[in-house]
Amino acid sequence: MLAVTILGNNSALSMHNRHQTAQVVTSEDQLFLVDCGEATQLQMERYKIKKSKINHIFISHLHGDHYYGLPGLLNTFSLTNRIAPLHLYATPELKTLIDLQLKISSSSFGFEFIFHPITGAATLLDLPGISVECFPVSHRIPCWGFLFKTKGKPARVKEGETLRAPIPPKSYAFCADSKYDESILEYVKGCNLIYHEATYLDNQAEKAAARFHSTSSDAATIALKAGAEKLLLGHFSSKYADLSPFEMEARKTFPGAKISKEGITYLIN
Amino acid sequence: MLAVTILGNNSALSMHNRHQTAQVVTSEDQLFLVDCGEATQLQMERYKIKKSKINHIFISHLHGDHYYGLPGLLNTFSLTNRIAPLHLYATPELKTLIDLQLKISSSSFGFEFIFHPITGAATLLDLPGISVECFPVSHRIPCWGFLFKTKGKPARVKEGETLRAPIPPKSYAFCADSKYDESILEYVKGCNLIYHEATYLDNQAEKAAARFHSTSSDAATIALKAGAEKLLLGHFSSKYADLSPFEMEARKTFPGAKISKEGITYLIN
Repeated sequence: MLAVTILGNNSALSMHNRHQTAQVVTSEDQLFLVDCGEATQLQMERYKIKKSKINHIFISHLHGDHYYGLPGLLNTFSLTNRIAPLHLYATPELKTLIDLQLKISSSSFGFEFIFHPITGAATLLDLPGISVECFPVSHRIPCWGFLFKTKGKPARVKEGETLRAPIPPKSYAFCADSKYDESILEYVKGCNLIYHEATYLDNQAEKAAARFHSTSSDAATIALKAGAEKLLLGHFSSKYADLSPFEMEARKTFPGAKISKEGITYLIN
Repeated sequence: MLAVTILGNNSALSMHNRHQTAQVVTSEDQLFLVDCGEATQLQMERYKIKKSKINHIFISHLHGDHYYGLPGLLNTFSLTNRIAPLHLYATPELKTLIDLQLKISSSSFGFEFIFHPITGAATLLDLPGISVECFPVSHRIPCWGFLFKTKGKPARVKEGETLRAPIPPKSYAFCADSKYDESILEYVKGCNLIYHEATYLDNQAEKAAARFHSTSSDAATIALKAGAEKLLLGHFSSKYADLSPFEMEARKTFPGAKISKEGITYLIN
């Protein structure tokens, strides 16, 4: 089983009852947090996410709307007597920042905290059921997408048992903040589900590119060229109260495109 | 006119639909923000606080529940094209942290940002209608209370006009996070309204003192000895779902004690 629950689908600000980027990837009984905008904790409460099941947190880049909720979440883990080690994957500067915050508050975490600096495309995590890779995307500052791949299971006949159908591997790619860039195709090719930012509608293509962001058609073209099964759009600019045009535009290129919605869990089956 | 609107009355965590410390002091048409826990921005939206009227922000100390909402608020000011200068008053390390956050996000504020380091008791601000002083309190790390004093107006009779009654000066003291400490009395003596933390009930007095926090009776005793008119209790531990015992305990010593409630504006008249 692989699924993603959207906690925030807005860019930069919280507005129109949409929140900053955060999402939870679920594989069997493990939860993985991807990005952590301010108030992600409150979104977790709202949507009944079991924080204690999160052992790995991935931060795409160090713009505030993608990580300002992280220090508070780590505090909460500490205050609620978390014991399990916590792994954080991000560009190295985040460790400097967290160390400074701990120092000026004269605090330490009550759990083992393991920071994994991201410096290039790599396999970040390889568990029995799932692996997580990172890949570079094109943003104004260093920024990383994350690829989750479940391993599937072959068909099996145990003696005296009926045939168990094979479970095919599944994959989910979070493409972070990025302008249109085909260099990610090598990483996300054949993905079952791609989450790609679409900060702007197509008539803002110039602004999108100048700000290292994408339009709805940019996202759809990436999904099409990657041969993805499904596409979720997100990271919408606060200038848009109504998101339906994003879906309409993207579907011209990639018919299965959907607007991501907060609180919804998208199953990848 | 002097008033305070409570945006957060809980300690450490957000829980029981209570939030981390933040409050807005209003004097005439000026708003002053005191502390800024995570998601203070969302509380401001909920309670219709006009963010653009905030020109001065005071942070008592650098425990996360008192400032983790600040970086996001500053971002929002920048993204929403704030022009007016913004003054921030806090211990010097907060400047280091903000500078680091700007550096790693390769960003700058679009408005003039003036940081005022707090290093001892001082008058931080002296405007025509109001002044703000800081005073040291006893916490685990350097921590500051803030005293807001309106200046009042003398009685006047302009020629041909009726007598205008004098407007007496009013004062509000935010006593931050502190264990019981009578040394603050010299600053808060005769205050119209004192906001004092009461993290714990009286039966947790030992724990309160060990953690540099106060009980409901500690807060009430300070208000009594200061000769304050009114007392608001706040910064409640998340272990308490029901806050009514705080009021009952405090009223044994100081009959006018009240639990502070989020979203409520307390007028000091």
